[in-house]
Amino acid sequence: MTGSSTPTRKRSVAVLGATGAVGQAFVRLLANHPWFELAEVAASERSAGRPYAEAARWLGTEPMPARVAKMIVKPVDPAAVQSELVFSALDSSVAGEAEGAFARAGRFVLSNAKNYRMEPDVPLVIAEVNPDHLALLDAQRECRGWGGGIVTNGNCSTIVAVSALAPLHTRFGIRQVFVATMQAVSGAGYPGVPSLDILGNVIPYIKEEEEKVETETLKMLGRVANGAVQSAPIAISAHTNRVPVEHGHTVCLSIGFQDRVKPEQAIAALREWRGAEEARGLPTAPERPLLVAEEPDRPQPRRDVGAGRGMSVVVGRVRGDPLFDVKLVAMGDNIIRGAAGASVLNAELLVRVGRLPAR
Amino acid sequence: MTGSSTPTRKRSVAVLGATGAVGQAFVRLLANHPWFELAEVAASERSAGRPYAEAARWLGTEPMPARVAKMIVKPVDPAAVQSELVFSALDSSVAGEAEGAFARAGRFVLSNAKNYRMEPDVPLVIAEVNPDHLALLDAQRECRGWGGGIVTNGNCSTIVAVSALAPLHTRFGIRQVFVATMQAVSGAGYPGVPSLDILGNVIPYIKEEEEKVETETLKMLGRVANGAVQSAPIAISAHTNRVPVEHGHTVCLSIGFQDRVKPEQAIAALREWRGAEEARGLPTAPERPLLVAEEPDRPQPRRDVGAGRGMSVVVGRVRGDPLFDVKLVAMGDNIIRGAAGASVLNAELLVRVGRLPAR
Amino acid sequence: MTGSSTPTRKRSVAVLGATGAVGQAFVRLLANHPWFELAEVAASERSAGRPYAEAARWLGTEPMPARVAKMIVKPVDPAAVQSELVFSALDSSVAGEAEGAFARAGRFVLSNAKNYRMEPDVPLVIAEVNPDHLALLDAQRECRGWGGGIVTNGNCSTIVAVSALAPLHTRFGIRQVFVATMQAVSGAGYPGVPSLDILGNVIPYIKEEEEKVETETLKMLGRVANGAVQSAPIAISAHTNRVPVEHGHTVCLSIGFQDRVKPEQAIAALREWRGAEEARGLPTAPERPLLVAEEPDRPQPRRDVGAGRGMSVVVGRVRGDPLFDVKLVAMGDNIIRGAAGASVLNAELLVRVGRLPAR
Amino acid sequence: MTGSSTPTRKRSVAVLGATGAVGQAFVRLLANHPWFELAEVAASERSAGRPYAEAARWLGTEPMPARVAKMIVKPVDPAAVQSELVFSALDSSVAGEAEGAFARAGRFVLSNAKNYRMEPDVPLVIAEVNPDHLALLDAQRECRGWGGGIVTNGNCSTIVAVSALAPLHTRFGIRQVFVATMQAVSGAGYPGVPSLDILGNVIPYIKEEEEKVETETLKMLGRVANGAVQSAPIAISAHTNRVPVEHGHTVCLSIGFQDRVKPEQAIAALREWRGAEEARGLPTAPERPLLVAEEPDRPQPRRDVGAGRGMSVVVGRVRGDPLFDVKLVAMGDNIIRGAAGASVLNAELLVRVGRLPAR
Repeated sequence: MTGSSTPTRKRSVAVLGATGAVGQAFVRLLANHPWFELAEVAASERSAGRPYAEAARWLGTEPMPARVAKMIVKPVDPAAVQSELVFSALDSSVAGEAEGAFARAGRFVLSNAKNYRMEPDVPLVIAEVNPDHLALLDAQRECRGWGGGIVTNGNCSTIVAVSALAPLHTRFGIRQVFVATMQAVSGAGYPGVPSLDILGNVIPYIKEEEEKVETETLKMLGRVANGAVQSAPIAISAHTNRVPVEHGHTVCLSIGFQDRVKPEQAIAALREWRGAEEARGLPTAPERPLLVAEEPDRPQPRRDVGAGRGMSVVVGRVRGDPLFDVKLVAMGDNIIRGAAGASVLNAELLVRVGRLPAR
Repeated sequence: MTGSSTPTRKRSVAVLGATGAVGQAFVRLLANHPWFELAEVAASERSAGRPYAEAARWLGTEPMPARVAKMIVKPVDPAAVQSELVFSALDSSVAGEAEGAFARAGRFVLSNAKNYRMEPDVPLVIAEVNPDHLALLDAQRECRGWGGGIVTNGNCSTIVAVSALAPLHTRFGIRQVFVATMQAVSGAGYPGVPSLDILGNVIPYIKEEEEKVETETLKMLGRVANGAVQSAPIAISAHTNRVPVEHGHTVCLSIGFQDRVKPEQAIAALREWRGAEEARGLPTAPERPLLVAEEPDRPQPRRDVGAGRGMSVVVGRVRGDPLFDVKLVAMGDNIIRGAAGASVLNAELLVRVGRLPAR
Repeated sequence: MTGSSTPTRKRSVAVLGATGAVGQAFVRLLANHPWFELAEVAASERSAGRPYAEAARWLGTEPMPARVAKMIVKPVDPAAVQSELVFSALDSSVAGEAEGAFARAGRFVLSNAKNYRMEPDVPLVIAEVNPDHLALLDAQRECRGWGGGIVTNGNCSTIVAVSALAPLHTRFGIRQVFVATMQAVSGAGYPGVPSLDILGNVIPYIKEEEEKVETETLKMLGRVANGAVQSAPIAISAHTNRVPVEHGHTVCLSIGFQDRVKPEQAIAALREWRGAEEARGLPTAPERPLLVAEEPDRPQPRRDVGAGRGMSVVVGRVRGDPLFDVKLVAMGDNIIRGAAGASVLNAELLVRVGRLPAR
Repeated sequence: MTGSSTPTRKRSVAVLGATGAVGQAFVRLLANHPWFELAEVAASERSAGRPYAEAARWLGTEPMPARVAKMIVKPVDPAAVQSELVFSALDSSVAGEAEGAFARAGRFVLSNAKNYRMEPDVPLVIAEVNPDHLALLDAQRECRGWGGGIVTNGNCSTIVAVSALAPLHTRFGIRQVFVATMQAVSGAGYPGVPSLDILGNVIPYIKEEEEKVETETLKMLGRVANGAVQSAPIAISAHTNRVPVEHGHTVCLSIGFQDRVKPEQAIAALREWRGAEEARGLPTAPERPLLVAEEPDRPQPRRDVGAGRGMSVVVGRVRGDPLFDVKLVAMGDNIIRGAAGASVLNAELLVRVGRLPAR
């Protein structure tokens, strides 16, 4: 957190997949960013060449930033996009190839897509939880010969779960976790979930989501050693569900530790947690990455999703568990903390720890 | 299932708490019942003395049965209510005293309230699962000196969970269960959950609900021996949530068995299950108490709640579990299978097994 | 209603656009139809050649009819589809050409699409309201030289409005109407309205919908003279809105008559109305095409949409209007009465009045 | 707008009915008000004597202001409440008596209740629309001999409608108006509308609401002459509906003018409007009391309710009307602009125009 790492001139950045739900969140977060200047927006062929205001069906409750509205959408191609720092909200069907092409072309890609997350040489990072995983970038460069690099953040529900698990794992060592999610429709993007499928309904299935929660969690809570991540030795079972909520994923967790842990101990650990030193004070970092609600019926997505401007995960109902040790509920903004905000925070972390080329 | 137990003349029955959401379901189910004649409706002082049509804010999509609409609501008092067979949808704040008074006065009470469920001498019954628990009625009579008796059915989410667990427990022996529910608002009665609390929201807390799931399940899956129920030796952890769904509780289950069980074995056991012999063919019994959905994203409350006219529980997504053996999702109508229908079916069972006085 | 027009052997029928929301409603309505045998399903190239069970994402709460599930979807082409009687749920982007091709090939098309509705020689019919408009088929045949013909039904919200207006217009003569609709999402088909757009929201705009209400109403309430429809001399202003309701369009109407009409007179006219003689007793005709609710807060889509198995429009709140004469609310099932059911009823009408070739 | 009227020291204020939905909005708006110091909260007997944090089920998405949380709720009695300026969110069942008692005791009451709105000597004010109606306070004092006074604001849906109508009436003279509302559940307070009544539903009835819209509008758009309001000579017909939206009332309007007015003229008038001089720059006044949306499908409650921090009404879809002259849609926050914010703005207006005693 030395002054030397604080940027003095804004870096130009681009957003890939800028017209979708997460892409728009990037635009909102970057419109007035103190370190980054949103210079380019790129999207699929259907959108490329049109002004952003026309290409994007704006979902925000605040008006589209005027400066961005006028930008002409570029194609998703490193030949067309100049910025060194690139935020990707690309769909996984195209992210694999496109993000690789950008990294090969010397760009740093902050990715929300699943494609590279579980690659052994690609960091899967929550800035407050495992900033040390950025060390994988060295292996990545060596391995792949890329001039740039790719840093990923987790799946939106995984990020909410891991934000609550990290302080407990750090302190007590987790052995097993049962997860049941109730996920907002915005997690499926736009147009995403048809209203006929979800009005007054629950869909107890989200494609590949349970696998993501069960694997990404282990990598994020794992340790870096010899340029690789050693997965955390935790057994996880996940049930993932879609519910008629607009924003905010709610996650029920039952947690078993290596040794007995009482609810009060868990509460204390959660309350004390401030996240990794490296992430504190970054522009997008919330004052508290984790808040502990006192009310018996919180967190609730409708009421708590805005905590820390969408960057704080709220936990509550920390109590004993008849099977494991502790039960609790965690809730976080799937679009901000669970996607775009997580990437922006990771980019800020890259800047601070000096992993981006000087300018 | 001998013909001799099939009633030849309809028995008069009463509904206590007839104006609420579950009370109305009783009225619907009993309006054209082949064995029972709905002769009396009773409710709190506020309603007593008024025609049912006025006292009840009718929630059904079909019109209120005309014959019942004209009935004058009676007070909840065995002196005012004549019927021998009484269905109770009373709130737990009054059910304890009132149901006891009716049983003492020689009536048979089919109760939805929590008050007597866990009493050692009171049967807690799902007709297809543990009809043998009716044997507790002998102990009850002896113990309490009641001329009548009380038979309870479980909490609505517990009934859904147990309907899915019973065939598996019978066949393989369950050791541990994780439960996470997503419960419909009708489970909270009427007016129940304020719309301001639940529109686009999840409330991860339902008062005392987790305790009910964790205890009632063990009793229902337990064995009767020497006039008492020996609880099933299962460890259960429950998370209960309210979601913006009108009808139908969805329950995620992770199940661990005494010995390894594969998903295919579980599926086969679920498919084969027809429930206890004693319950088959009863007027309110569905053709299949349990249906196994094939689609990857079912059951869903909006689409499956009407299965078996609300009396079939639908399970789906039976798959392996990284922590225990098997994961699955169960969904059932909380008002029919989970409350009023369960009571009516229990009453039919009482008739068939000859536990009601002859007329 | 002579016995001679009642079919003795079922006619084979086809559904075009069978995989969409309205197409599926046709499948449900025709699966056990007493006069028609659903013999063929056709849909776009994406679906053609696949079994219906695979091609259609089934939206119904009851299982897909087993016989239809196995049918191979045909292309929308009169060369591939044999049936003489064809129900069309095609999108307007393709309906113009396709429906014309079927009519040219000698088939009778019952269409839900907007394309031909306002053509002077095409009947736009609600069976109970203007069955005499079928006379346009003679002009149509003459004009276009088609061996077959096209009969259309109105836009879903227009049908609900006209069902309530018809008895009043017939009796008193309407001069002006103010309409404000609150329309269900199923009216936009599937996938249709994205959940992110409508959860907890109102969209005060439905493309071209206000124009449809303002023009189709005049044609349907018009008179046939000399082989053409003379539009009803009514001035209409429509506001159309989308609301987070699954099924059932609610329509607020303020109605001005040629001479003063009191609410009680309007209520009497609405209560008496049984619809045109020709439509009575047809298989899909409800006992009452119009029901008048007594409760002060009805009709409501959630509670009344199933009236007459989706074929009855329910009106309520008939009261005085400070500007015109009478205000009221009408509600009907947009998928059944407002689309597929209306077409099936029109086909039954064609059979009864002898407008289809004998077989 | 002279500097002399800007307060130099904060005035102590109280909120009556502080625990309900509107009461809580007062607490939020007054927690950091530049001119007013929230010194007292009062509520019904059930709440009086308890800390506000306990008595109120907090509905806000931001935490309850800590200072208020600790306040002990006072009874609604001028003997117990000291403040000279009193905001009332009392239910109409008690507001009549209570507000009168406060005014008699020399207090100035800013009321949301319907009780005094239509009294000839009580101002019914939207600060930007009819600040001159405050002149009625002189008649009120004379008439009733009160040391204080009562100023009311309109019903929530009326305020939204009038905010859109005022600029048009001022400029062109309105003759007739059709109104159809789609109102949020928060307009019914808390607990208010049961979720079982409104999930996926429309209720086409709100008790006494249509009458309020039809009468209050005329008073607000009327002129003060000789100490009385002469109602505007406008004929209004209102349809009011409840929809499953949390916050934000949407209002469809068809407007007929004294002389022909084209949509472009109406748009120009709406765009130009800044509201009455007296209200501009007041702390709670938005920069623009009226915003004109350009998108074809706006305003929408979910997306536009926060405009001007809930104090701007957004209009859109201004277009020609086949019956009258112009159709449009207006939407506003029913809790802020439609209730608490309107009262606070009225209080600021009272201060500015010198209608409160100096301190």
